[in-house]
Amino acid sequence: LYSGEVKKCTLIPGDGIGPEISSAVQKIFDAAKVPIEWEPVDVTPVRGPDGKFGIPQAAIDSVNRNQIGLKGPLMTPIGKGHRSLNLALRKEFNLYANVRPCRSLEGYKTLYDDVDVVTIRENTEGEYSGIEHEIVDGVVQSIKLITEDASRRVAEFAFQYAKENKRKKVTAVHKANIMRMSDGLFLRCCRDMAKKYPDVKFEERYLDTVCLNMVQDPSKYDVLVMPNLYGDILSDMCAGLVGGLGLTPSGNIGLNGALFESVHGTAPDIAGQDKANPTALLLSAVMMLRYMQLNPYADKIEKACFDTIKEAKYLTGDLGGKAKCSEFTNEICSKISQS
Amino acid sequence: LYSGEVKKCTLIPGDGIGPEISSAVQKIFDAAKVPIEWEPVDVTPVRGPDGKFGIPQAAIDSVNRNQIGLKGPLMTPIGKGHRSLNLALRKEFNLYANVRPCRSLEGYKTLYDDVDVVTIRENTEGEYSGIEHEIVDGVVQSIKLITEDASRRVAEFAFQYAKENKRKKVTAVHKANIMRMSDGLFLRCCRDMAKKYPDVKFEERYLDTVCLNMVQDPSKYDVLVMPNLYGDILSDMCAGLVGGLGLTPSGNIGLNGALFESVHGTAPDIAGQDKANPTALLLSAVMMLRYMQLNPYADKIEKACFDTIKEAKYLTGDLGGKAKCSEFTNEICSKISQS
Ligand SMILES: CC(C)[C@H](C(=O)O)[C@@H](O)C(=O)O
Ligand SMILES: CC(C)[C@H](C(=O)O)[C@@H](O)C(=O)O
Repeated sequence: LYSGEVKKCTLIPGDGIGPEISSAVQKIFDAAKVPIEWEPVDVTPVRGPDGKFGIPQAAIDSVNRNQIGLKGPLMTPIGKGHRSLNLALRKEFNLYANVRPCRSLEGYKTLYDDVDVVTIRENTEGEYSGIEHEIVDGVVQSIKLITEDASRRVAEFAFQYAKENKRKKVTAVHKANIMRMSDGLFLRCCRDMAKKYPDVKFEERYLDTVCLNMVQDPSKYDVLVMPNLYGDILSDMCAGLVGGLGLTPSGNIGLNGALFESVHGTAPDIAGQDKANPTALLLSAVMMLRYMQLNPYADKIEKACFDTIKEAKYLTGDLGGKAKCSEFTNEICSKISQS
Repeated sequence: LYSGEVKKCTLIPGDGIGPEISSAVQKIFDAAKVPIEWEPVDVTPVRGPDGKFGIPQAAIDSVNRNQIGLKGPLMTPIGKGHRSLNLALRKEFNLYANVRPCRSLEGYKTLYDDVDVVTIRENTEGEYSGIEHEIVDGVVQSIKLITEDASRRVAEFAFQYAKENKRKKVTAVHKANIMRMSDGLFLRCCRDMAKKYPDVKFEERYLDTVCLNMVQDPSKYDVLVMPNLYGDILSDMCAGLVGGLGLTPSGNIGLNGALFESVHGTAPDIAGQDKANPTALLLSAVMMLRYMQLNPYADKIEKACFDTIKEAKYLTGDLGGKAKCSEFTNEICSKISQS
């Protein structure tokens, strides 16, 4: 992918603390001399010719052109006509796999110190199909849609990810004992794919069992692949084990591009006060660099970030420290410059 | 409910370790002189006149007559024609609310020591509707069914439960940001019900947020009410926090009866060896006694069980001890006799 040239990269700073943490990431990337040129875009929904609100065309064009983007947190506009912007982006760019690695951070103590799992979530269908009806008064059905194509491609992604990242095992997470046909189809696609990756161990587990085991002994798991909603739940739970959404990165991978994002909220209460923790967005940007095969930059930045947290001299408030976002950021930059 | 007479109670001993742990409970009830007469029934599916397998009529009649039952773990028969027997029982007796209290046990150390939550799960519909179709090859839909009636009655149950058990708060758990109509309806029913219980605090939270917060600080929650699948997940997760399904009770409440059960597996590997831990079934039986308003018996038995675990002299293998099921049981019985 990386040809030695400076690559353009769409930047969606986002709302609330989004702009601050995006600036922090840009500053750190500058310090590391990453060969990337940012293309900031605004995704505030605009009313289209059909009267409906949607993502501005300029933003869509930018992502389509660059095929790579980094995104801060977005507020969901309130009101009936608006679906979540996060979801709209996943849909618009057909970002079919959502990848969330959760690893215990040395120096940041939680109840667990051996977490190292990656949830891979089908990102386009399932319970997120958006198809719902009120059949008669007081009787509603929502449709969970599972297709062979989407299941197969996310299964393939999971095994390929495991292989490339030298992970040992893929666990398919399901409730095929209840949803025999839909989760059954998903599971069959995983089983079939497993046969093509004989070096990666494969197992299948019920979602409820995984939830129970994960809080007792997360080392039981490695890479997990699952339908959309299960991924929403499990990835948040796993993030909780290592310290929350402020510390965990996320990537949305599509056929023609990828969008990396922090999945925490916009934290309006501290926005604009130089208090936010940019770690989740920074680690998402690090994932992006690896995706772009800019691994040396990724490694350098990641190490500086982890070391800063481990040393605990410049921690933001959410991590129990008193540092400003800019102090934390500067510390990472100076570690990079010294390395 | 309790009139001073000896009440008959259906007993479904179950498979695997089921018979041993059921005997243990019976022995303990005898020691406590509980005014109950057990009516053991077999629920092994039999082929009916229509050729389909189902629960034997004698078992159905027994539960309908007694309107109260205790159930050990059941094996799900393998094969296409069989749905889970557990589910069939919930359906047959219209057991609309599944109640699972999870409390940290003094003396049994886990990562968490302040857990005290109760999940209340809608038990008849949602993702468990069983309605699925393959629309075209490789495209499957499963229907999540949410009705106002079922949502309202489980919401009412949750608030009533909170009130009677002097709990402070009910949290409705949902993904109405995604399933706006179905989870939206569920949520509306909870909001409406909340107005009738001004003394119980009410809050609504996204399922993913609850999963994240629960592993970080379970003391954030008290009573939680939610659609079927979410309850399946959250109750197992909460059980994990306090030591697993071997320690947590469960009750299925219906309009015309209630069935209390341990929700762990049949543990075929240790069946018949006097090694099983009867705690989950015993605590389910204790829930049953409270449901029957036999509270003094419930309190006495529960205390003896908790004290036995706290003293840690007679613990079964799953709790890190070496005691046989019968030794653990005898210790509880002798504590009851001495009290
Ligand atoms: C914001 C919300 C729509 C989203 C989801 O449910 O997928 C979020 O929870 C996530 O995990 O990215
Ligand atoms: C055995 C299975 C069908 C059941 C469920 O999914 O409800 C179980 O996990 C439970 O929680 O009682």
